[in-house]
Amino acid sequence: MIGFIGLGIMGSRMAGRLLAHGHALIVHNRSQEKAEPLLNQGARWAASPKEVAEHADIVFTMLANPKAVETVAIGENGFLDHLAEGSLWVDMSTVDPSFSRRMAQEAGKRKVRFLDAPVAGSKIPAEKGELVFHVGGKAEDLEEVRPLLECMGRAVHHQGEVGSGTAMKIVINLMLAQSMAAFAEAVTLGEALGFDKAHVVDTLLGGATAAPFLRGKRDKIVNGDFEPEFPLEHMQKDLQLVAQTAFEQNVALPLANAGKELYALAKQKGYRGQDFSAIYQFLKDR
Amino acid sequence: MIGFIGLGIMGSRMAGRLLAHGHALIVHNRSQEKAEPLLNQGARWAASPKEVAEHADIVFTMLANPKAVETVAIGENGFLDHLAEGSLWVDMSTVDPSFSRRMAQEAGKRKVRFLDAPVAGSKIPAEKGELVFHVGGKAEDLEEVRPLLECMGRAVHHQGEVGSGTAMKIVINLMLAQSMAAFAEAVTLGEALGFDKAHVVDTLLGGATAAPFLRGKRDKIVNGDFEPEFPLEHMQKDLQLVAQTAFEQNVALPLANAGKELYALAKQKGYRGQDFSAIYQFLKDR
Amino acid sequence: MIGFIGLGIMGSRMAGRLLAHGHALIVHNRSQEKAEPLLNQGARWAASPKEVAEHADIVFTMLANPKAVETVAIGENGFLDHLAEGSLWVDMSTVDPSFSRRMAQEAGKRKVRFLDAPVAGSKIPAEKGELVFHVGGKAEDLEEVRPLLECMGRAVHHQGEVGSGTAMKIVINLMLAQSMAAFAEAVTLGEALGFDKAHVVDTLLGGATAAPFLRGKRDKIVNGDFEPEFPLEHMQKDLQLVAQTAFEQNVALPLANAGKELYALAKQKGYRGQDFSAIYQFLKDR
Amino acid sequence: MIGFIGLGIMGSRMAGRLLAHGHALIVHNRSQEKAEPLLNQGARWAASPKEVAEHADIVFTMLANPKAVETVAIGENGFLDHLAEGSLWVDMSTVDPSFSRRMAQEAGKRKVRFLDAPVAGSKIPAEKGELVFHVGGKAEDLEEVRPLLECMGRAVHHQGEVGSGTAMKIVINLMLAQSMAAFAEAVTLGEALGFDKAHVVDTLLGGATAAPFLRGKRDKIVNGDFEPEFPLEHMQKDLQLVAQTAFEQNVALPLANAGKELYALAKQKGYRGQDFSAIYQFLKDR
Repeated sequence: MIGFIGLGIMGSRMAGRLLAHGHALIVHNRSQEKAEPLLNQGARWAASPKEVAEHADIVFTMLANPKAVETVAIGENGFLDHLAEGSLWVDMSTVDPSFSRRMAQEAGKRKVRFLDAPVAGSKIPAEKGELVFHVGGKAEDLEEVRPLLECMGRAVHHQGEVGSGTAMKIVINLMLAQSMAAFAEAVTLGEALGFDKAHVVDTLLGGATAAPFLRGKRDKIVNGDFEPEFPLEHMQKDLQLVAQTAFEQNVALPLANAGKELYALAKQKGYRGQDFSAIYQFLKDR
Repeated sequence: MIGFIGLGIMGSRMAGRLLAHGHALIVHNRSQEKAEPLLNQGARWAASPKEVAEHADIVFTMLANPKAVETVAIGENGFLDHLAEGSLWVDMSTVDPSFSRRMAQEAGKRKVRFLDAPVAGSKIPAEKGELVFHVGGKAEDLEEVRPLLECMGRAVHHQGEVGSGTAMKIVINLMLAQSMAAFAEAVTLGEALGFDKAHVVDTLLGGATAAPFLRGKRDKIVNGDFEPEFPLEHMQKDLQLVAQTAFEQNVALPLANAGKELYALAKQKGYRGQDFSAIYQFLKDR
Repeated sequence: MIGFIGLGIMGSRMAGRLLAHGHALIVHNRSQEKAEPLLNQGARWAASPKEVAEHADIVFTMLANPKAVETVAIGENGFLDHLAEGSLWVDMSTVDPSFSRRMAQEAGKRKVRFLDAPVAGSKIPAEKGELVFHVGGKAEDLEEVRPLLECMGRAVHHQGEVGSGTAMKIVINLMLAQSMAAFAEAVTLGEALGFDKAHVVDTLLGGATAAPFLRGKRDKIVNGDFEPEFPLEHMQKDLQLVAQTAFEQNVALPLANAGKELYALAKQKGYRGQDFSAIYQFLKDR
Repeated sequence: MIGFIGLGIMGSRMAGRLLAHGHALIVHNRSQEKAEPLLNQGARWAASPKEVAEHADIVFTMLANPKAVETVAIGENGFLDHLAEGSLWVDMSTVDPSFSRRMAQEAGKRKVRFLDAPVAGSKIPAEKGELVFHVGGKAEDLEEVRPLLECMGRAVHHQGEVGSGTAMKIVINLMLAQSMAAFAEAVTLGEALGFDKAHVVDTLLGGATAAPFLRGKRDKIVNGDFEPEFPLEHMQKDLQLVAQTAFEQNVALPLANAGKELYALAKQKGYRGQDFSAIYQFLKDR
């Protein structure tokens, strides 16, 4: 049986894809409520991470941050001590590379194999199985779970040894966060200069300076409706992972840190649960 | 006859397009040397902006910054006092909207018509006539010069009254500057994490988080050759125009200002004459 | 007679000092209301800057920003065209050095002498005549007005030629703005870590890392009462002058620009009219 | 016997103070070379942290960062497993509060008592015994070592429970780092505006906007000699601890993060081993 821990916006949809492809699933989440739709589709409920481990030989985790991953893995009633030797843990959470390497060590001590396999893509691609996986770890371990990953994603890239999936993911999320914030500032400036919001947005989206994913944020910005696909507080957390990693690797990233604090202010001022494109609204509100 | 003042990387190529389409041109530049290729193609040389005005009824300017425009227009031997009433001045330089409005007033006092018509695109599009014009001013004035603009560009957008061409241009250049800097930081982080430079660059360019124009910067970054298409110091100047305009319009743009200073440091540390994508090299060098 | 234009928080108190020392004053302000206390003390009212010029041979200006100075000096009914040759204009406003030099030129064209004489100090020192003047311009002009400056200040420093008073002033205000913001962030961090606000504030003020002027901000922060001595929006304007000047002088000031935008956000979010120490409150509020 | 681990710029001088006051010391450092002067004064050498623990019932640590502390405490041959129950560990390193609390837990598991007791002050105060201690932990434990701390410092402040010494220390270092950087930018601006360096420095130091500790940096800046009292890379590390802590405590500190990256750039560009006041030189160099 396959274990799946973490049923938020992303995890619930990814687990749903596995179920829909006929895989038997045992699931766990901090609040059981979010598991209900999956249980109705046939998934089995586990009252703790430990209980997941007792019934699964492959465990997927999809959680909000390193601390949450650490808790379910090696905290009280964590799953890692209870997995059978030779089992495989696939962590799809966005964490930092040092953390992935540390989790791989914890797994290794218990003779559990480990892959870091974070995903590019948010709510809609998760629902449609169109995520992109960036995977770190052993090629043979990846081959073993590739069919499962392909239920959830349209592409699977092996980036190298343990930690390299996570490494590529934070590089991508840095681009995502900063492109969004740069776009938000450009639209804000355009409006301040008297342009109609939709006109600036569409002019930028029609040119060569705006990242393609921004087209998916058009309506949110134009309509001022920031229902979360990827919550702002998660993006802010990812920028913190970027900053921590840059410090460890001894590179200066002035713009990334400025972006981190811009999102931090927005988080503090009430936009934390909105989509991260609400960074625009933070800049606009008076 | 058509006057053309400012024959830098962009201006020389744009003037060349007009010549190639059979238009008679009288040109001026601070240093005559840069005019030679155009003179060989049949353009006439003017020893001063004033001399341009004495022979032209349409004057194009393509200069580095507001001060340079002000000097050729209303400085000593400037052209504006010498243009016939009813002439048309088309300023294609990247300046700030307040400045465009002020130049329109100066022109108006002398019964000269004015369009601000800055361009999106750099060296190669300038050469191929594939620039995009964003034009502010009266529609009938624009219609009069549209055929000329279409010698130089593939699209001409009327953005509204005087200053609105410039307004849209600095919005676009803000996106350009910040996307470039965000990309440079992301690649820097990727390399610090052990990835091959070309692999990170191509992964990002293959995804949805990188602005399309960045594909044109790929080889510069991968090969470390930053021959200028758009010099870094000009981009830094444009960010200063953005910051000045944001102050005037009373909007905060924290990320834009962080970008401005990142380019300012790079400019100070020796990268000023290189392509603005050399912001990557500044971040990498130790 | 002495002319005095600009009767805000600072100007009204400085003019009051001159009156109290027995000098005859003709005053003007955008709104007459603020002049009433001075008129009651014997000052004469002028309906326009022009009218000030018609009765004074020395004119002091104390205004909010370069634009305001330009308007009263050379705008409609400005004073400069109406001052007698040989008169002296002393601009005590905080502006940028380029602007001071330009005003000196405008004065010079009309054979009016010019000093830039901005002040360090805010409301209380203005009231007590304890300001510090930093003066740019000719030594003999300064000697002529020194007795008047000494009615308003406790020290008068001749910094050099025209513009150098202003230059030193913006250097000082940069320190002021940034020390305040750094202190605000440190207190914010301390409170977030569980310390009592007054304890962090007093610990920092008792050590060697906090600028002396911060002692005067203690009660504002501890009591959360930000009645303006020096309004936040003026400080934000001064940082803009710093940024503009740094661009002109070709130096990068990353921290100054980050500070500028921090104050800009606070200004936008409702703290513009409060004392600039309210940057603390902006950081704290949720 | 008293154990002392970490004999860098600070630790060597602090240990020297204890020796000079007649205390028996067993010392350890990564490189033995730095211990020689102390050994000549009568200190005993320990080949490992473990060996320190075998002879001491009080252990002081004074190390560069959390990782170094963790290594000597609970890494291979770490001291913590070898200290007798009831011993006392006093960590004087600058770390983050979360880390101090974690170390207290590690100590507690082994029935070892723990104080976090970081110091304000750098090389000269360390030599003269004029440091200021900010201590977190139990009052009775502090009383026990107070006489020892008073050999090294002129003041000892009990800030509260475990972690609160460290908490106050990073608040203070944030002020230190930011005041230094603000001063460096102000001097840079002043020089760019034509003032003599010493004149700007002394004007600022004579006013109310500069933190008192900056007087101790005057000669370094004026003479351009940045022999380290507190190395720039350590300050950059402390700002990283501030940023990490601010994230954990959910407060935005935009200026602190901008400062962090300014120091990070300077560190990267060759100023890492110089005094942190060399941030001035980084800003000036072209």
